[in-house]
Amino acid sequence: MPMIPERGFPEAEYAMRTAKAQAAMARDGLAGLLLTTEPEMRYFSGFHTLFWQSPTRPWFLFVPATGKPVAVIPEIGAELMRGTWIEDIRTWSAPAPEDDGITLLTELLAPHARGEVVGLLKGHETHLRMPLNDYERLLAGLGGLRIADATGLIRDLRMVKSEAEIEKIGHACAIASRSFARLPEIAAEGQPLEDVFRAFRREMLGQGADDIPYLVGGADRGGYHDVISPPSRRPLARGDILMLDTGSTWDGYFCDFDRNWAIGSADDASRRAYDVLWRATEAGLAAARPGATCRDIFKAMQGVIAEMDSQGGDVGRLGHGLGMQLTEWPSHAAWDTTEIVENMVLTLEPSLGYGDGRIMVHEENIVVRKGGAQLLTERAAPELPII
Amino acid sequence: MPMIPERGFPEAEYAMRTAKAQAAMARDGLAGLLLTTEPEMRYFSGFHTLFWQSPTRPWFLFVPATGKPVAVIPEIGAELMRGTWIEDIRTWSAPAPEDDGITLLTELLAPHARGEVVGLLKGHETHLRMPLNDYERLLAGLGGLRIADATGLIRDLRMVKSEAEIEKIGHACAIASRSFARLPEIAAEGQPLEDVFRAFRREMLGQGADDIPYLVGGADRGGYHDVISPPSRRPLARGDILMLDTGSTWDGYFCDFDRNWAIGSADDASRRAYDVLWRATEAGLAAARPGATCRDIFKAMQGVIAEMDSQGGDVGRLGHGLGMQLTEWPSHAAWDTTEIVENMVLTLEPSLGYGDGRIMVHEENIVVRKGGAQLLTERAAPELPII
Repeated sequence: MPMIPERGFPEAEYAMRTAKAQAAMARDGLAGLLLTTEPEMRYFSGFHTLFWQSPTRPWFLFVPATGKPVAVIPEIGAELMRGTWIEDIRTWSAPAPEDDGITLLTELLAPHARGEVVGLLKGHETHLRMPLNDYERLLAGLGGLRIADATGLIRDLRMVKSEAEIEKIGHACAIASRSFARLPEIAAEGQPLEDVFRAFRREMLGQGADDIPYLVGGADRGGYHDVISPPSRRPLARGDILMLDTGSTWDGYFCDFDRNWAIGSADDASRRAYDVLWRATEAGLAAARPGATCRDIFKAMQGVIAEMDSQGGDVGRLGHGLGMQLTEWPSHAAWDTTEIVENMVLTLEPSLGYGDGRIMVHEENIVVRKGGAQLLTERAAPELPII
Repeated sequence: MPMIPERGFPEAEYAMRTAKAQAAMARDGLAGLLLTTEPEMRYFSGFHTLFWQSPTRPWFLFVPATGKPVAVIPEIGAELMRGTWIEDIRTWSAPAPEDDGITLLTELLAPHARGEVVGLLKGHETHLRMPLNDYERLLAGLGGLRIADATGLIRDLRMVKSEAEIEKIGHACAIASRSFARLPEIAAEGQPLEDVFRAFRREMLGQGADDIPYLVGGADRGGYHDVISPPSRRPLARGDILMLDTGSTWDGYFCDFDRNWAIGSADDASRRAYDVLWRATEAGLAAARPGATCRDIFKAMQGVIAEMDSQGGDVGRLGHGLGMQLTEWPSHAAWDTTEIVENMVLTLEPSLGYGDGRIMVHEENIVVRKGGAQLLTERAAPELPII
């Protein structure tokens, strides 16, 4: 069993993230950043809890132009927040539909409401996690405040991981790799797919995962048809192609990859699809170097996929960023010209449609180093494994 | 082992939900409802997937004044959506930052952009799950469209559960009740809290849970200090009070309750806090009858809590609704005058602060019937159990 990394981050990591954000804010003319979503609050404060599962209460973190971030949060989170590096913690008794933090936020932002600009996440892959009514009320009460989209700023920061972050993602990947290796002992012909899922979740916890927020997959004769479904009660049958795709976490960081197996025997089309995707991943591994773009990685994989693809199974891209969220910027797609830089953590996720509406997906997780892609996952077998 | 309910719902359930929504829309003068969040999309369509873990793609469901809802979704979800009762499914190749469904939505909503009103969730406990830039662009392209807050309408529908929903929540509660009953065999002095969490997750999966999206708790000498933390590596020690609070799911429906134990021996203050909260729950059970209000339930519990509470541990309310989300409307709080009606599923969650910053929370789940509260959870022991 490999070494288990330290949990959490030293305070210096949060100080560095904040300093980098503040340098970018100065460049972009932002007086502050107002953040409402879990990954961003955790990124700058270290505030880590599953309590975000409850949609009831909004949470706010404000990154000023200088100094530590300020937390404006429900009182129920005060004790946990006091354990982070944040010092200025302002709380209210939430939920309070009439004033869920709006007075506190208004006080905090009022000094900037004389024409200054505050950044907010408004762009791709983001949302505003507070009631829209409250947001409109907040702005109405801060007449002179200008809002700018800070998605690019946050995206640039979060896309490049620290060594400590890479270690956590690598640990999550190692746990899932060990679990996938045990799958032939867990799954068998005749077992309902739902039971395979449940057994695999237990295996991952046993291997050290904290949580399995994401587990999808499919199994069907000669290939699966869908890659985002919950499991059915249909028993695995000889000739099925089985796929499991997991986003399990360790210390709040995700892995995100899948594996494919044939039950009993494999049909020729599925074996060929597997081979094409395995080689497409190889092409992606070779292309994922500093200085390349996401489009380059996409094209490298697509060039191999084109040997077989019938243009079914449009999943929109061939991989993405990975970290505190199951999927993060950037996207391996023709439209994404993001430059690949060292210490990006990425998935390579080639997929293709074949036969009568069947789809196959492969996925690996990598970190980009100076010399190129370094696998964080145990590479899938080069030929479709048979259980 | 009790009977396992059927998964999913008959089409008639979705038709009934839609008909009720449409009756309320007619009452409120709404030409449609535009929904962007997972529970609402699932409520009206049956579209059920963990793929929402990925923040990358927006998903839309439009409930028109008459007829079935219309899905405007990424192509990756088309196959799964075709398995629901929805017929009009419009897809695009997502992600597509330049046009993530906006053209499709604009076409769909254009007929209403001549002064008609479309409902959107803008109120308490809601958020808009799409990039704010895209929302602003959508509205700008539909000059004559008026938006109204439909939170009240959706809240009224979702607060009252069908028998099929109650059965699923009851099943989730039964799974967690059996798992909590096994805790004394799982947890022991000397065991790090993190390992207790992991073993408890495995137990819940073994008892039949699909997933455990929420597990928090605490353990400390003479009482815990925080109720939303992830677990530490600190070993359980004699004199600790241990609390676990879980929101585990079955077929997409949550339970949400906790249990408390003392390790080895219990201090007097914790035993007294436990007794007060157990009796506060009894008062809540007696008060949760059709015709009462959430405020009545709050006051009934608060009256008992007042025997001891030092006003620490402000969690803002003493329970809430429960269903497709860990926490739903309404809130047992002085400000919530929602009338309790039959087939509401609720938590009773009295808490109090005591000693030097310690907090204790109890929680049970109930369904409100004609005659009053019916427990869905196996009632907690009347005295603090010792492991």
